[in-house]
Amino acid sequence: MLVDTNKARSFCENLFAAYGFSQEESKIITDVLLRADLYGIESHGIHRLSRYHEEITTGQVDVKAKIETVHETAISACLEANKAMGQLTGVYAMNLAIQKAKSAGCGMITVRNSNHYGIASYYTELASAQDLTGMSMTNTEAICVPTFGCEAMTGTNALALAMPAEPFIFSYDASTTVVPRGKLEVYRKKGQPLPDNWALDANGKPCNDAALVVENIIAKAGGGIAPLGGLGTLHGGHKGYGLSIAVDMFSAVISSGLTSNHVNRKPGHTGICHYFSAFDYGIFGDKKEIKNNMSKFLQEIRDSRKAEGQTRIYTHGEREAELMAQRQNGQIPVNEKTIEEMKAIAKQLNVDCQF
Amino acid sequence: MLVDTNKARSFCENLFAAYGFSQEESKIITDVLLRADLYGIESHGIHRLSRYHEEITTGQVDVKAKIETVHETAISACLEANKAMGQLTGVYAMNLAIQKAKSAGCGMITVRNSNHYGIASYYTELASAQDLTGMSMTNTEAICVPTFGCEAMTGTNALALAMPAEPFIFSYDASTTVVPRGKLEVYRKKGQPLPDNWALDANGKPCNDAALVVENIIAKAGGGIAPLGGLGTLHGGHKGYGLSIAVDMFSAVISSGLTSNHVNRKPGHTGICHYFSAFDYGIFGDKKEIKNNMSKFLQEIRDSRKAEGQTRIYTHGEREAELMAQRQNGQIPVNEKTIEEMKAIAKQLNVDCQF
Repeated sequence: MLVDTNKARSFCENLFAAYGFSQEESKIITDVLLRADLYGIESHGIHRLSRYHEEITTGQVDVKAKIETVHETAISACLEANKAMGQLTGVYAMNLAIQKAKSAGCGMITVRNSNHYGIASYYTELASAQDLTGMSMTNTEAICVPTFGCEAMTGTNALALAMPAEPFIFSYDASTTVVPRGKLEVYRKKGQPLPDNWALDANGKPCNDAALVVENIIAKAGGGIAPLGGLGTLHGGHKGYGLSIAVDMFSAVISSGLTSNHVNRKPGHTGICHYFSAFDYGIFGDKKEIKNNMSKFLQEIRDSRKAEGQTRIYTHGEREAELMAQRQNGQIPVNEKTIEEMKAIAKQLNVDCQF
Repeated sequence: MLVDTNKARSFCENLFAAYGFSQEESKIITDVLLRADLYGIESHGIHRLSRYHEEITTGQVDVKAKIETVHETAISACLEANKAMGQLTGVYAMNLAIQKAKSAGCGMITVRNSNHYGIASYYTELASAQDLTGMSMTNTEAICVPTFGCEAMTGTNALALAMPAEPFIFSYDASTTVVPRGKLEVYRKKGQPLPDNWALDANGKPCNDAALVVENIIAKAGGGIAPLGGLGTLHGGHKGYGLSIAVDMFSAVISSGLTSNHVNRKPGHTGICHYFSAFDYGIFGDKKEIKNNMSKFLQEIRDSRKAEGQTRIYTHGEREAELMAQRQNGQIPVNEKTIEEMKAIAKQLNVDCQF
């Protein structure tokens, strides 16, 4: 089902205001949320409203939270988010990183006790929009099983990087698992077997049963998703496993927050941690030259020979930029179940919903 | 064949001195080279002597090169390596990053026109030995084919990260390809078919013929190795592809050097680029607490339940530290062919070789 983008925006802003967020805060949360739909990443868009509703109403998110600075230098800060909405934490922290990058060349911000912050690229692109390089990472509840293990110890643990370039910025944003949990849910709904090398059962054996894996994850019964590179070491699973540790290191270890294996989605507290950094790439030389170098390299990749049957090589962020151009003053696809959930939430909060 | 570690060290130091490097320089190059053998990464150890011999004698490496600073701030520098030996560039640049991290909290160094620098973890561990966090990246000649492409555009593009912890530091060092080229050479020698999802032929079709892929790479005829995550997007190949771009960005783009697709191993000039950074994790809070957090997290992972048939979960750098403890005052394995190559080089340079 297609929904008018501007109508969806008004609805979300009104909804978040109804929870008690200020107008300004409601606009920020909505903008992060809808950016995912504009980019074609539906798993992180308006589809998440029911999860956010649950988090706000069970006290995982504190609508009135004030973010505190625990430690600060000219180039760094450690923030205590006090259970703030992840999107508000993210925009606050990345803006602080940007401010430091502009005054001192770089800014590195680690954050503890936040919540799910949506797509990581939203924040890195705040930096690239200011002609800076941006990075962001976030942990989540554990879902990823270390190489040779059978218990999830790290999260989906996204890693994002944005760098200015023409005609498309480079915007990388990906989990350090072979796939995010949402992909398993799609196979489960369709009743299809999972591809090999994606997941493990509770005993650490390769498993193609999507329903079993998802149920085990929910019940914390063992097993889970393989790191990027798959099971074992043959295809480099130990590499994805190491990258997932790196994400927890930057977000949770250096902020003295909860690592993924201690994060949970029980009422009251998640403990999700993030990391943000921005640097002015002009600290390495002439900005125009460096940006041209990036544009040229990406263009050479896009122009390189295509595999048989392929017509296009994408660089990261290109497809999203194209989709957004189509959708931002048009429509976004929203599935029927999400519409029903939105209507139910709207009724509960007495917010007008015209879908 | 097992070779006495100290004898191998003396031999290499004498050999590099014979090329015209100073005693100090010869010790540095040798230490980086042998560290790979001590860590069990034979592909990057003494086995590389014949390649370095070729690079030094054909002018890819300039024995008398002076590294120049092109651009510098309190937290950054861009270096022109002027074809210096990669190990000398690496130690120089990481020491500069460490110095900046100690005085300003962080140091980020990008380097152009260097050469192959051995294992990336040697440099990141220079930082962790000073109780700092270290990162390093390097590009190489192109070997990795972008998702949907059939032409290698990025290199093996290693990414390394080290963070102090007890009893083992966390030391991640891995290529952003599914496997490095050396792995393909092993399958080729054994005449075994490559595992699926590793490589492509000149038309971009999946290919299990190790000899064909290696020959195509050498002839630059097309095809190559898949990024981490494999071919296509099913197992996340687009993620490894993006990470390989990120490595080229930090090493080659911001240094205005050659991106992997322009790097080559022809006589005279390779153009390999690196990136190094160090930061004092005390800019985020109490160092003792943060280091304890890291040690605890890694220990929880090592202690987590093992998959059926597995007895141990390793964290990155653990296996290498154990191997080095055994080997550093003992012996290192060196294959027969490498011994022969060493003897031939020794004869040519009139250096004593007692293996």
